[in-house]
Amino acid sequence: MQSVIHLVSGDETEQRTALNIARNLLDDESGSIDDIAIVAQAGGIHAVTTDGEHAEDVQSLLDDGVPFKGCSNTLAAFDLEESDLLDGVETVPEGAVEVTRLQDEGYAYLRP
Amino acid sequence: MQSVIHLVSGDETEQRTALNIARNLLDDESGSIDDIAIVAQAGGIHAVTTDGEHAEDVQSLLDDGVPFKGCSNTLAAFDLEESDLLDGVETVPEGAVEVTRLQDEGYAYLRP
Amino acid sequence: MQSVIHLVSGDETEQRTALNIARNLLDDESGSIDDIAIVAQAGGIHAVTTDGEHAEDVQSLLDDGVPFKGCSNTLAAFDLEESDLLDGVETVPEGAVEVTRLQDEGYAYLRP
Repeated sequence: MQSVIHLVSGDETEQRTALNIARNLLDDESGSIDDIAIVAQAGGIHAVTTDGEHAEDVQSLLDDGVPFKGCSNTLAAFDLEESDLLDGVETVPEGAVEVTRLQDEGYAYLRP
Repeated sequence: MQSVIHLVSGDETEQRTALNIARNLLDDESGSIDDIAIVAQAGGIHAVTTDGEHAEDVQSLLDDGVPFKGCSNTLAAFDLEESDLLDGVETVPEGAVEVTRLQDEGYAYLRP
Repeated sequence: MQSVIHLVSGDETEQRTALNIARNLLDDESGSIDDIAIVAQAGGIHAVTTDGEHAEDVQSLLDDGVPFKGCSNTLAAFDLEESDLLDGVETVPEGAVEVTRLQDEGYAYLRP
């Protein structure tokens, strides 16, 4: 099974929950989760910037192979550059299109 | 592909994000999004009332053909009338049933 | 059709909305909803504890046959015991895996 986490909120507790859930999916002993993806947009984009509160946990998930995709529309709206994102965070033109595409491919949706 | 946005929160930042995402899906240059629907219920209903903070943006999306569906159970619970909704907002008996139905039809779910 | 509600937020308004939606799905006169499940994790776990604000409504939904599944990872993280959960609340090793599994089985996802 596959899961996409929508990191869309600027609320730090919700961001923390999203990252905890990603970690738990990764560590799941049932082995039923084959792929995880995290799409960051709107207020959630801050979680994947170099000066985000949760940079260390994002980096650790990246190191473990979890793909993070930042929304380019959000970067433009928030006056951020790709260089503000943590190394390894990819960009997609629009986060919600990516989340739609992943669900269309069979990913389950999680919005912590 | 098709996307349904669940406008379920009374938080104005989340409502703003939901409407921004609808606009971005509509303007998406990849052309991969065929249909969008927005279902408003619980605190999210306020966004589609005539005196909502975001009335102008909702109207603009309505004008561009995005269907908005307000939850009648919410209207009753909040002592609102259909006449309190912006012109063009339809009603459905229960928002969550409509969101379920749309996912069952193949819509991806987005909860900004 | 089937719906899973992700009770993942510690916000009491969001928890209230989640339980209202469960009740409305159950009472839906269209008869189109065959099954509902509620998965509680992260801040949402508090809603299904014996001293939660909404214990009475959770109990009423349990009495009406709605399954509630609490996340064991969350219990451990919050230093809670299974005995802190309302009678009838089951546990699953990881809430997000359960939500993924249910979507994989065809459940629509709702995150109030």
